[in-house]
Amino acid sequence: MDRRAFLASLTAAAAPRSSQGGIVLNEDANHYFATRAGRRLTAAEVSSFIDQYAGTQVRDLFINVNAMRAGFRSKTRTSFFDGYDPSGPDNQPLFASASPSEAKAARAWVHLAWQLDQDGIDPYRLWLERARHHRIGAWVSVRMNDLHNVDDEKHYLHSEFWKTHPNLRRVPYRQDQRDKALDYLHPEVREHNFQFIEEVAARYSFDGIELDWMRFGFHFAAGREDEGAILLTDFHRRVRKLLGPKRRIAVRVPSRPETAQRLGLDAVAWAREGLVDIVTVTNFWRTVDNDMPIDLWRRLLPANVTLCAGLELGLNPFPGSTAAGGKPFQTNSIDTVRGSAAAYFHQGADRIYLFNYMDSQTAMDDNSTYPQLLRQVGELPTIRRHPRRHVVTYQDTWAPGEKAAYKLPIDVAANRWFSVRQPVGGETPNYRAAIRLGVRGADASAWEVRCNGIPAQFQRVESNLTPGPDTPVYRFSAKLNNPEAVIDAKPTAAGRVEWVEILLEL
Amino acid sequence: MDRRAFLASLTAAAAPRSSQGGIVLNEDANHYFATRAGRRLTAAEVSSFIDQYAGTQVRDLFINVNAMRAGFRSKTRTSFFDGYDPSGPDNQPLFASASPSEAKAARAWVHLAWQLDQDGIDPYRLWLERARHHRIGAWVSVRMNDLHNVDDEKHYLHSEFWKTHPNLRRVPYRQDQRDKALDYLHPEVREHNFQFIEEVAARYSFDGIELDWMRFGFHFAAGREDEGAILLTDFHRRVRKLLGPKRRIAVRVPSRPETAQRLGLDAVAWAREGLVDIVTVTNFWRTVDNDMPIDLWRRLLPANVTLCAGLELGLNPFPGSTAAGGKPFQTNSIDTVRGSAAAYFHQGADRIYLFNYMDSQTAMDDNSTYPQLLRQVGELPTIRRHPRRHVVTYQDTWAPGEKAAYKLPIDVAANRWFSVRQPVGGETPNYRAAIRLGVRGADASAWEVRCNGIPAQFQRVESNLTPGPDTPVYRFSAKLNNPEAVIDAKPTAAGRVEWVEILLEL
Repeated sequence: MDRRAFLASLTAAAAPRSSQGGIVLNEDANHYFATRAGRRLTAAEVSSFIDQYAGTQVRDLFINVNAMRAGFRSKTRTSFFDGYDPSGPDNQPLFASASPSEAKAARAWVHLAWQLDQDGIDPYRLWLERARHHRIGAWVSVRMNDLHNVDDEKHYLHSEFWKTHPNLRRVPYRQDQRDKALDYLHPEVREHNFQFIEEVAARYSFDGIELDWMRFGFHFAAGREDEGAILLTDFHRRVRKLLGPKRRIAVRVPSRPETAQRLGLDAVAWAREGLVDIVTVTNFWRTVDNDMPIDLWRRLLPANVTLCAGLELGLNPFPGSTAAGGKPFQTNSIDTVRGSAAAYFHQGADRIYLFNYMDSQTAMDDNSTYPQLLRQVGELPTIRRHPRRHVVTYQDTWAPGEKAAYKLPIDVAANRWFSVRQPVGGETPNYRAAIRLGVRGADASAWEVRCNGIPAQFQRVESNLTPGPDTPVYRFSAKLNNPEAVIDAKPTAAGRVEWVEILLEL
Repeated sequence: MDRRAFLASLTAAAAPRSSQGGIVLNEDANHYFATRAGRRLTAAEVSSFIDQYAGTQVRDLFINVNAMRAGFRSKTRTSFFDGYDPSGPDNQPLFASASPSEAKAARAWVHLAWQLDQDGIDPYRLWLERARHHRIGAWVSVRMNDLHNVDDEKHYLHSEFWKTHPNLRRVPYRQDQRDKALDYLHPEVREHNFQFIEEVAARYSFDGIELDWMRFGFHFAAGREDEGAILLTDFHRRVRKLLGPKRRIAVRVPSRPETAQRLGLDAVAWAREGLVDIVTVTNFWRTVDNDMPIDLWRRLLPANVTLCAGLELGLNPFPGSTAAGGKPFQTNSIDTVRGSAAAYFHQGADRIYLFNYMDSQTAMDDNSTYPQLLRQVGELPTIRRHPRRHVVTYQDTWAPGEKAAYKLPIDVAANRWFSVRQPVGGETPNYRAAIRLGVRGADASAWEVRCNGIPAQFQRVESNLTPGPDTPVYRFSAKLNNPEAVIDAKPTAAGRVEWVEILLEL
């Protein structure tokens, strides 16, 4: 630590911690347009969208205002509706690369965005105002390198800047999604994005701004992240200076400190230098990561920096896993979110950050529980009134050349022990515990199963858990006295373990 | 952080850092006996063993005094020569479970230990005195849970305490090596080991004592490490109180902070509470770990705590890898140690800690370079006068239920890129760089290979590298401008990559 960082960390450590608890909720830039398309909306209708979050545990609303394009008519980058002809057909040039059905849907939401702009309605502005009205923190979230649909170079979501600067991409010799991200080693890329932050800061009145580095997490040529980290820290100094002392700054970064640093996203350095106020650590998308080292992050960050545990919507135990009915994607339920939140609050998270948990479409498979979700998962006392499920998942973002580690699946053999660890939060003795093992190709009912050394007893076979795997699930009653559960099991035959869960019931 | 820990960390952070550089060298408890067996030694001869470390970069000698048994006649545990009958045959009861050849060798070194004791010569005491004479730090290292040969329950290395307390083992329902470790959750185990530390502290005059938690790294029932961590922190408070303010305390713990914490070895908590002065992070044994997050440890530990990068003797790229001639074990050479040391000094290590780098037998395959090793690898200026090799290896110690991640081997397919990352230290542009890929079953000479995005050029096929794999090695010239190297490669055919190395030549 240099002297400056050291002094900053002292100030930070001496200040009181903000009280634990609360939800941060991210609303993405076009979810509202997509789910309300086909109607002409008034300002009051648009504004009322926020009312569902009033009186809940949502403490801060993070209103995302861009993907690669801006969600509003921007002076510094292409907007969603730039190039849109309201009197043209669905297959007009903007949507030329989309299939007829995609073009129809896209046209409908882009039209709504265009219409609102025509009508002088800026939904983001209205939502920020309405959030403040409800005494909810009003934040703007800026995606720093969005890559939706880059497999289609002509897709309607792409900005002119990206399309006209293929030379600024981070891995020009490959064509994977992440290779096509803009490379912040180039000053043009930094300038392009800084100008957008300047524009947003001038345009909107907000409590804070989030720089969302997890859309999509990759910002530098592979192996040059050390150079990149220095540049990004300087970028954050500029942002702090731009916003001044009153407006706060948040960031989203990968779930593991080593991975974040090796991606050039040195949130610890930013926090110790006083450049950020909230750090959210999170998976990218496919699944919630239920084993983020939140306790380690808490130790690395100054005490006055708010640490959010970022929860994604998906719940997949491993890459390529399948849910009931063989479908490749499933979401968390209120039960599994309670599990994630309980474990992370126990490890020292200040808040739970929900990403892609929206009120429709991009939402939980059973979103009838959405109102309850917003009233339960942000505080330990409300979490503890209900059962919860702790499901083994995986980290989905790794730096180039890091080795990805997935706990599942496990190809097991007869009489050979295997072990799986899962954090389960504190006060576990107040619950009845059960272990659920989803196993393909073997009957696990006679397996020797232990939880933290104590034998577990087979109870029954379950099926069609939601969420759950498309294998039979073998349920064992267990005793649990610790904030971590280590399942040790000795199979009686070969098979494949595809799901491991600790269920806590009252 | 509670207030006490916080205040301790402030004091710690405010104190000046000890200057970077120097080697810590561990000499194990019976290496000397084993390598000098068959002779009658004088005190002067024994003492002179230390002279080879005078005038080198060895700053501290850590004299290990026990395995499961003590190396001296102990009041608190079994000694190496307890039960030994000097007039008995090789197959006397103490060695009954050993093969005739093992019994002969064992008897020879146990006899030497016994004879020295009979002659009133305590080698550890002499070495500590001689180290001080040479102005080398004189430390005692105590192994906290040694498990050599526990597959043979009647082995001559086992203590009476371990043999008579099978109920105190950490995993009584399994019989793997680590399962047979004593469980520090039991007060009897903590007391047994604390008494030994008391005895050592009373018996010897030393600058500091090391608690070697990495022999063998596992000290608690699986899943109960949170309870264990609290007990061990209290154990360390007792040790600090016992030793007082003048004698220093070191620990060895696993290479990754999460793993250390999940094994109940919370070195960060110990350091922040002022209970330890030196923290060494290290692999267990089979291979040096060339990707320990030293920079992360540096951030977690108070600035006045000395951070040592612990290097093991072995150099294996993955579990089950084979070296030239198909042999399963190979050691580092002076070139590869320079690589490890350069990378770790760059990341903020204060010192390099060499374990199992002894003057004979447990030594580098080519130990003719031992004198040079002791004079080069402890300081960046001497490292930088020579070429160095950065070899991809793996972390060999993981907490129960963690998922072990190994970068190698990689089963590659035609036209599918793969990536491997390796830290290589600073000032890399001063060197000529080459990439070495050991590949089984494919000719890699036409592969597209890049280092941090820059194309590398195939040079030639090498074979019989020492150390090296028993595959052909494809060498590519490369450019390197960063302290991390990310190798991106696109194979032309399927094969298995078993070795990845960055060679830096002057």
